[in-house]
Amino acid sequence: MITIETFVHILDLGGTFVFAISGAVAAVNRRLDIFGILVLSFVAGNFGGIGRDVLIGAVPPAALTDGFYLLVSMLAGLITFFLYAGVDRLRSPVLLFDAAGLAFFAVAGAQKAIAFGLSPVMSALLGMLTGIGGGMTRDVLLADIPQVLHSDLYAVAALVGASIVVIGDMLGLAYGISALTGGALCFGLRFMAIRHGWRLPIAHLSAHGRAGSDPSSHDKPY
Amino acid sequence: MITIETFVHILDLGGTFVFAISGAVAAVNRRLDIFGILVLSFVAGNFGGIGRDVLIGAVPPAALTDGFYLLVSMLAGLITFFLYAGVDRLRSPVLLFDAAGLAFFAVAGAQKAIAFGLSPVMSALLGMLTGIGGGMTRDVLLADIPQVLHSDLYAVAALVGASIVVIGDMLGLAYGISALTGGALCFGLRFMAIRHGWRLPIAHLSAHGRAGSDPSSHDKPY
Amino acid sequence: MITIETFVHILDLGGTFVFAISGAVAAVNRRLDIFGILVLSFVAGNFGGIGRDVLIGAVPPAALTDGFYLLVSMLAGLITFFLYAGVDRLRSPVLLFDAAGLAFFAVAGAQKAIAFGLSPVMSALLGMLTGIGGGMTRDVLLADIPQVLHSDLYAVAALVGASIVVIGDMLGLAYGISALTGGALCFGLRFMAIRHGWRLPIAHLSAHGRAGSDPSSHDKPY
Repeated sequence: MITIETFVHILDLGGTFVFAISGAVAAVNRRLDIFGILVLSFVAGNFGGIGRDVLIGAVPPAALTDGFYLLVSMLAGLITFFLYAGVDRLRSPVLLFDAAGLAFFAVAGAQKAIAFGLSPVMSALLGMLTGIGGGMTRDVLLADIPQVLHSDLYAVAALVGASIVVIGDMLGLAYGISALTGGALCFGLRFMAIRHGWRLPIAHLSAHGRAGSDPSSHDKPY
Repeated sequence: MITIETFVHILDLGGTFVFAISGAVAAVNRRLDIFGILVLSFVAGNFGGIGRDVLIGAVPPAALTDGFYLLVSMLAGLITFFLYAGVDRLRSPVLLFDAAGLAFFAVAGAQKAIAFGLSPVMSALLGMLTGIGGGMTRDVLLADIPQVLHSDLYAVAALVGASIVVIGDMLGLAYGISALTGGALCFGLRFMAIRHGWRLPIAHLSAHGRAGSDPSSHDKPY
Repeated sequence: MITIETFVHILDLGGTFVFAISGAVAAVNRRLDIFGILVLSFVAGNFGGIGRDVLIGAVPPAALTDGFYLLVSMLAGLITFFLYAGVDRLRSPVLLFDAAGLAFFAVAGAQKAIAFGLSPVMSALLGMLTGIGGGMTRDVLLADIPQVLHSDLYAVAALVGASIVVIGDMLGLAYGISALTGGALCFGLRFMAIRHGWRLPIAHLSAHGRAGSDPSSHDKPY
């Protein structure tokens, strides 16, 4: 019978793989070399989980003691390196892999936070932060504003997925069911947001506010 | 009677609130959506304290186990989102809130480092780093060079505030007095630096140095 | 007789000094003030080691409990500040100091990871990550894509140096010999890569791929 540890492990490895692909594709597009690609694969694939493990006190993090995370990250980087043309043929591949990684990590992150005794609200948020962490680090390393901060329902999707897992745990449901539901909901929400351009509201600026000034002013907010 | 734990807690929450406002205002100016605003509020408000807690081994960090930090951050984000026009009417609001957050965190960070048994010099520096951490992460996430690195007496103000707390502790003064003195001095120093453009010296470049070359060269220092 | 702890300590301080110089020089070139220079010295010199210590659970990190790291970082920052013209006269000084810091940290990081009981493969990678961490943080704070990600054999050199130490440990060699060999190989490899422009391969893009589109498209990979 599959234990909860094995289950979180498999979710974690799945998330690592797809996030590593997203890191590798972004690295290839910036013309980084093979090692830069592998480093970015590892960072994108593992810094969400490493951040979570450091925060809940599970050090050394699983990504450093369990060789599978490294293996899966390198595999994703090498596949992308050698088959880039194929990977690129998918429409917006980074977005899709990123959405799948988000779903995996949101669910696995919430599950692990529960197992370490954090409160329900914090477990849901830690699941969200786990999902966000890898992609944020990837974007920061490429000197971009992280996609999560101006993207269509990105963090909301992660939070919904993680919350389903937490609620399922409180209701005593089998974790397989709540994880599958949460993950599917997270991916579906993010996918629909990309496809239909669903957006969250932005703040209303006054008529004489910055919105009316020249666009370059937005680059220097203070 | 108020204990030192309660006192550090209140300082921490105050710093979290004002830094969260600074994060939210910066996010609004970059036209991020409501969730991006809340994420940046949490990050700016809590990554100084989370960094400190991870470094001194206080994991899970207070920001994840104590719901007040989350509450205060979300409140600051929502207030900024709905009342932005009002917040914006203050002159240079990010700068002012940032200075207040710096004072709160420098004092609280030093206090907590002392409580965890770090040496006086390191407690002062950890106070400074706590004060710097939130704002730095905010700026890094917005792909800016952190304000602290080229700002008028920014880190010095934090270091002075934290040092007052450490010296007060060594002299056996009541922590309320040294915290108030240190915090006021930190805020005052930073405020005067902004108002009067006080600056620290920069390195003297040789006559044939880079200062004389074309400006774009500054973007590629190596 | 010199113990392994003393040895790792000396390597660590050496790496801290040269990385701190690289941080200070980069800060001077960006026209940061004296405190910005000192902050960047500390960050560049210590965030590799701090990252390693947080990951292996050695908190508070050595850089916060042992005053020498601070002393050495400040010294490097002040020397650079006052003698910049002299430092600048060296050809590509940041690159050279960066290469030396990489060698010191790769070796010391691997040594400490072994001492904390990590597996050989992970010890080598942690050595590499220790070497990469300081420079990456320096570049991220200056809003650049980290040099390591698009540089000639940068991470490979660190990995080779760290691997020599790990292999030496497995073979039971004196750590002085394997550390010297690993460090020299790391520095030499990096130096030759800079001098002769050795590069790793980048991914092959399809004929109709992004390589053919306008250059600006590389700035928005997704």
